[in-house]
Amino acid sequence: MSRNANSIRLAVVPGDGIGQEVVAEGLKVLAAALPADVALETTEYDLGARLYHRTGETLPDSVLDELRGADAILLGAIGDPSVPSGVLERGLLLKLRFAFDHHVNLRPAKLGPGVVSPLGKDAQIDFVVVREGTEGPYVGNGGTLRAGTQHEVATEVSVNTAFGIERVVRDAFARAQARPRKKLTLVHKNNVLVYAGHLWTRIFNEVAAEFPEVTTDYLHVDAATIFMVTQPERFDVIVTDNLFGDIITDLAAAIAGGIGLAASGNINPSGEFPSMFEPVHGSAPDIAGQGKADPTATVLSVAMLLEHLGHTDAARAVEAAVDADLAERASLGARSTSEIGDALAKRVAG
Amino acid sequence: MSRNANSIRLAVVPGDGIGQEVVAEGLKVLAAALPADVALETTEYDLGARLYHRTGETLPDSVLDELRGADAILLGAIGDPSVPSGVLERGLLLKLRFAFDHHVNLRPAKLGPGVVSPLGKDAQIDFVVVREGTEGPYVGNGGTLRAGTQHEVATEVSVNTAFGIERVVRDAFARAQARPRKKLTLVHKNNVLVYAGHLWTRIFNEVAAEFPEVTTDYLHVDAATIFMVTQPERFDVIVTDNLFGDIITDLAAAIAGGIGLAASGNINPSGEFPSMFEPVHGSAPDIAGQGKADPTATVLSVAMLLEHLGHTDAARAVEAAVDADLAERASLGARSTSEIGDALAKRVAG
Ligand SMILES: CC(C)[C@H](C(=O)O)[C@@H](O)C(=O)O
Ligand SMILES: CC(C)[C@H](C(=O)O)[C@@H](O)C(=O)O
Repeated sequence: MSRNANSIRLAVVPGDGIGQEVVAEGLKVLAAALPADVALETTEYDLGARLYHRTGETLPDSVLDELRGADAILLGAIGDPSVPSGVLERGLLLKLRFAFDHHVNLRPAKLGPGVVSPLGKDAQIDFVVVREGTEGPYVGNGGTLRAGTQHEVATEVSVNTAFGIERVVRDAFARAQARPRKKLTLVHKNNVLVYAGHLWTRIFNEVAAEFPEVTTDYLHVDAATIFMVTQPERFDVIVTDNLFGDIITDLAAAIAGGIGLAASGNINPSGEFPSMFEPVHGSAPDIAGQGKADPTATVLSVAMLLEHLGHTDAARAVEAAVDADLAERASLGARSTSEIGDALAKRVAG
Repeated sequence: MSRNANSIRLAVVPGDGIGQEVVAEGLKVLAAALPADVALETTEYDLGARLYHRTGETLPDSVLDELRGADAILLGAIGDPSVPSGVLERGLLLKLRFAFDHHVNLRPAKLGPGVVSPLGKDAQIDFVVVREGTEGPYVGNGGTLRAGTQHEVATEVSVNTAFGIERVVRDAFARAQARPRKKLTLVHKNNVLVYAGHLWTRIFNEVAAEFPEVTTDYLHVDAATIFMVTQPERFDVIVTDNLFGDIITDLAAAIAGGIGLAASGNINPSGEFPSMFEPVHGSAPDIAGQGKADPTATVLSVAMLLEHLGHTDAARAVEAAVDADLAERASLGARSTSEIGDALAKRVAG
């Protein structure tokens, strides 16, 4: 897919709950950040609980085809209590990640200026998790026998390939190599999940030989959660599987000031398919529609989107606006979703 | 197996690294705590890295048979860098848990007096995790295809049965019912691992109907890690699967003052097989043999052992000794493993 540097075809999937509200603010900031000579063409797709209730569909093939032609996707949040758990997550969010081969799920955790970590104000948090996005226990290969009975047996199969691990491990090494501390930690559970764990460990060690400057480290996932709350400064880049990455990035968000600030990119590095950017948080139905959601995570996801599309200056401007806003938050009163979005857009523009 | 209330046949497996040191202190405190009319007969088994290097064995059948006759097992820690990852964990520790059907893996998290949580001194932490111990991704049902090649595929199968889930969920409900707050949280990932997750959720809801006084709650495992560092007071009893339980109990230990204080019991509630008590921490080869390990987690595991065997007063005495010791730690200098053990034994005896 060839891309025109002076235009962005952006597919927007606000989704459920607060997804709507935070995406609106993300788009405001995106518009303010884009260089004047870059044309932005957005197409919004109404996917999620509403579509599901109306038609029973989660991701129609026609929509998937259209999305394929986008330069990038901005997603809000997926999931609603009115829909059985898993239907929208597997049928829409994970379907997009798998269909567009988003194997690098990038989740930075950095304590912003003035942000108070639950670990106290001296906590040093500046790392990025590279979560594998297309394999592991997320593949949906499982089943059930004697469903609904007292003899039911349910299985979940984690599938891990040398191919899938190598590409994400290589990506993580390259990211570690580009950072000042040049440190990469593999997180797995290779003392229990020995088949998958040994494959991850072998590939990790093989690829390490190509990056002699990168310091490497291994932690079991359980130990990683301990270090995250006792020595978060020990992490620089982490590479891990889909499920472990899911768990430790929520924890990482919590220690870095909360899920309202955690951005993510579901990256297809080859550019064969559009990458997708979304806040780490969910649809938060309990506060939806009340203007209470913090759009900062979405705005930081927009910065990742800009960076991915090569608009590096614009990405830095969005990040700087967020940092400046964060630094003043303690002295500001409560603001609504759109007030925060307006403030960020104003900073970016001016 | 019938048990004599006035004697305890205790099997002791110190294992690797600091396991040796902490178990020695646990035994000191156990001896001090036992009522005078209870005879303690201990048999030590030299299992772990040394046996493996000597004979290639991890758990000889003859030892397994002998252990079967014990009233309880006290275990230190298993694992050593000189042995490939997983060999001792799967071949010894998990083999014992599975062979003796330790389906209730009990892991309390309580902030002791004077203990400073990384979450600050106002953190309220007093919950217990009931981790399923014989199913899930720990079953070892997996494999590898084209091992060692760039086309390797490794799988791990999580096996979950209605039978296995119901018994641990029922145990957790009963524990919640017996606590003042009467609250039980199911932790899983039922929006992604839909087969296993829906089975857990169904059984949980079915059993809930029998415990109308217990307030129930559900959290995805990723969200649970957030609440653990932002609102640990929301947890009373948690029930979860083997892998999620492994991860969140290390995190729970970290917020409750560190892995040096975290006790656990691998319980076979029917008493058909001996239950096994062990600190949550590992063998910590980096500090082994230096007298630096904190034996408190093992001592608290001894309290759980005493409670399990019906010696409730002795169990309470050990806990009280630990609390009194913890409360004074800030004013004491660094103490060696045996100094802490001696101090605890002295308090218990006196
Ligand atoms: C909503 C859910 C399917 C998703 C995941 O598990 O990946 C979310 O928790 C996330 O981290 O993006
Ligand atoms: C050593 C390892 C096999 C074990 C586990 O994963 O259960 C440990 O982490 C624990 O929590 O007891």
